[in-house]
Amino acid sequence: MSSPQGDIALIGLAVMGQNLILNMNDHGFVVVAYNRTVSKVDDFLANEAKGTKVIGAKSLEDMVAKLKKPRRVMLLVKAGDAVDAFIDKLVPLLEKGDIIIDGGNSEYNDSIRRCKALKEKGMLFVGSGVSGGEDGARYGPSLMPGGAEDAWPAIKDIFQSISAKVGSEPCCDWVGPEGAGHFVKMVHNGIEYGDMQLICEAYSLMKDALGMSHDEMGKVLDTWNKSELESFLIEITRDILNFKDTDGKPLVEKILDSAGQKGTGKWTAISALDYGVPVTLIGEAVFARCLSSLKTERVAASKEISGPDPKFTGDKQSFINDIRQALYASKIVSYAQGFMLMRETAKEFKWKLNMGAIALMWRGGCIIRSVFLGNIKQAFDKNPDLSNLLLDSFFKTEIQKSQDAWRRVVSQAVLRGIPTPAFSTALAFFDGYRSENLPANLIQAQRDYFGAHTYERLDKPGTFVHTNWTGHGGNVSSTTYQA
Amino acid sequence: MSSPQGDIALIGLAVMGQNLILNMNDHGFVVVAYNRTVSKVDDFLANEAKGTKVIGAKSLEDMVAKLKKPRRVMLLVKAGDAVDAFIDKLVPLLEKGDIIIDGGNSEYNDSIRRCKALKEKGMLFVGSGVSGGEDGARYGPSLMPGGAEDAWPAIKDIFQSISAKVGSEPCCDWVGPEGAGHFVKMVHNGIEYGDMQLICEAYSLMKDALGMSHDEMGKVLDTWNKSELESFLIEITRDILNFKDTDGKPLVEKILDSAGQKGTGKWTAISALDYGVPVTLIGEAVFARCLSSLKTERVAASKEISGPDPKFTGDKQSFINDIRQALYASKIVSYAQGFMLMRETAKEFKWKLNMGAIALMWRGGCIIRSVFLGNIKQAFDKNPDLSNLLLDSFFKTEIQKSQDAWRRVVSQAVLRGIPTPAFSTALAFFDGYRSENLPANLIQAQRDYFGAHTYERLDKPGTFVHTNWTGHGGNVSSTTYQA
Repeated sequence: MSSPQGDIALIGLAVMGQNLILNMNDHGFVVVAYNRTVSKVDDFLANEAKGTKVIGAKSLEDMVAKLKKPRRVMLLVKAGDAVDAFIDKLVPLLEKGDIIIDGGNSEYNDSIRRCKALKEKGMLFVGSGVSGGEDGARYGPSLMPGGAEDAWPAIKDIFQSISAKVGSEPCCDWVGPEGAGHFVKMVHNGIEYGDMQLICEAYSLMKDALGMSHDEMGKVLDTWNKSELESFLIEITRDILNFKDTDGKPLVEKILDSAGQKGTGKWTAISALDYGVPVTLIGEAVFARCLSSLKTERVAASKEISGPDPKFTGDKQSFINDIRQALYASKIVSYAQGFMLMRETAKEFKWKLNMGAIALMWRGGCIIRSVFLGNIKQAFDKNPDLSNLLLDSFFKTEIQKSQDAWRRVVSQAVLRGIPTPAFSTALAFFDGYRSENLPANLIQAQRDYFGAHTYERLDKPGTFVHTNWTGHGGNVSSTTYQA
Repeated sequence: MSSPQGDIALIGLAVMGQNLILNMNDHGFVVVAYNRTVSKVDDFLANEAKGTKVIGAKSLEDMVAKLKKPRRVMLLVKAGDAVDAFIDKLVPLLEKGDIIIDGGNSEYNDSIRRCKALKEKGMLFVGSGVSGGEDGARYGPSLMPGGAEDAWPAIKDIFQSISAKVGSEPCCDWVGPEGAGHFVKMVHNGIEYGDMQLICEAYSLMKDALGMSHDEMGKVLDTWNKSELESFLIEITRDILNFKDTDGKPLVEKILDSAGQKGTGKWTAISALDYGVPVTLIGEAVFARCLSSLKTERVAASKEISGPDPKFTGDKQSFINDIRQALYASKIVSYAQGFMLMRETAKEFKWKLNMGAIALMWRGGCIIRSVFLGNIKQAFDKNPDLSNLLLDSFFKTEIQKSQDAWRRVVSQAVLRGIPTPAFSTALAFFDGYRSENLPANLIQAQRDYFGAHTYERLDKPGTFVHTNWTGHGGNVSSTTYQA
């Protein structure tokens, strides 16, 4: 029999898998395609992959036999047990030095575990974020690989060839050890949740406060896409607002306002809580989806509870400009929070994360790709140790330029009864972050009052004291009780 | 040797443990006291417990030997490994039918695990929430026991005797199976985080927007404590604002504004995310503590980023009244969210939770005790299956009465640059909850556009469709990829 021709195998022929295979094929790589339901392989070869160099595999053994060494096997299956199940089936078929790449949206702690487990067997695990949806996968995704660094030279050519490009630079670089790739992808998705929620809040303000038609809003989004907001999500929102159903009416109006929220957005918010980083905007974006899913309850409540008239009475065009600036300022806060989370997590795991490289990986190919991420890249190029985006000269100036408009918008939303949880929390964070003093001194006093938790005095840094506030209840300070 | 005299043993002589022992002793129970550092036992007997019937134990063997059967052993040690370590040491010393009670702030999933593990050994595990801080423990805490129900008859008398009372009703009842006691305590603590943050926001508005002195604010809190806000936390905040340091200045001003946030508040927010319940106010309260702890970063940012003049220019007295109503309305939302979380979790674990009984347990003794919880009790007495507090006739009326003032306060905070994340998120939730339509239809369109996630049409409930928005990229709908 002839020597194996396959450069890489891909398992899982759902839309993302199919498109990644066709993308690799376009770049001259021979891909071995496999799917648990093997008939899907034949369908794929007979249709989407017709006339390509893609090779089908009838079994995992067949698939492995068709691969050059070191064997590169990429999984694009449902995150969770399915990944472990395939890894268990693959390990006996592979040799030391072979590479297993998980391209699904796996939880980064799972990737840390898998990386260690395969290392013990002498195999190389790569957990790679893949973003860009079906189009990105097909024509150039953002790829965020991390894990066993020895695997990088063997996959770098494939990954950087198929990835999106900004100018000549690939939106793919080595992220870091263990679960760093999936962690960064998780934060990307959290930020994506935030961006989508921010656009939704701008949408409902235009729709409900200004009573604009979808055509009008489509035109506004088109102008926004020529501004500092230029991005994939603004662009597709414009297209969505303009998209007509068969009856000529806007299709988006006919879609149930109940959004799914399980997965990476939720994990990002949980990580933020675990590491104690105030990533409030992503948190609100996830909760906004939770609330949206309570449709029946909301419909019932809407008949029971009334609010103010949503109609805005001031100058329409200037309010539209205010909304754009509120969206922009909130977006700056959201990314500042996301990079704070990566900064803290890198400390926690002793990972070296190149923040500028991450901004470049997100600059193109992925769902959150935007001109904005180019500005973030520049901020980290100027100062690789930048502690916070809000302190970068560019973003500091931008957000201060926008803040009056931002405050007008949130103030109006509040008075008109239009929920803007993400705009609001971003502004509250901005005002808290720039506050030398917050009222948490009162929290510390309360905790010491009822729980003897002790507190730190401003004039005696580092020493914790307990005050017997009540005159009774003892002077024993708490060592075990956390109220 | 004489027969054992001990009704119950208590392990862990930090402030909470000592005070619970003295409380049990006051009610005629003979308590055997033990601590890992045995010298603490002698100190306790020689001082706080002098002249009581408390018996000291020199070892766990000694402690167990001094207990009547079924033996009741209560742990008040640091949540986590210390609890497992003591359980492992106790099990060989105990018999079938003996009871181990964990009174620490354990994570409810740990209590579920411990309950099952001890059941296999024929022993009864109780995970009990204990709230009220050192004073509560001493004079009447709120107790939230859950776990092995067979243990309840054997501990009911002790627990209900030492617990706080509302009229003649004890603030202690059986909560439910497995980890239900610690789960409800966790939600209690989450709500406590929320209440504390809400008071802090009122405090900073009075201090920064109105420029009030601590004496003035103390007087205002005193009047609030005679209003619908009457509660332990308002009462101690009044005392704290009035408390002078040795130099006659308010002590609270000298406390570092950096609050601890690890523990049960964080767990509540994580549970909310895990079960998909929008408990936004507790989430913001936890994140507010995270932000407060970034003191150095905030001080640096305060010199770089400027905001508007915080001074309020309108009528001071009416704004103070507005703040009170904003606090009240936000508090209603926070409790509504907390009970939503308990409702969903009870479904998840198939626990039967008596919401009215929980409200009564919290009505007295604990940190969040208040007149307000009496109103919640009444709401569930009226309708035990009440789906949401906001739909109860009393709370619905109250929050609608307050909403104009609430909107004025948040609007002013936003325009003055004073962060009120909890007031703001509560209002955003209120407006979202009463919205028949939210902009999540756009999110669903976006997810289908870039990830082929499909969406549900309003006119075809239950059927999920994919639209080929771009005209290219294929019609394969996503089954594995979750962007």
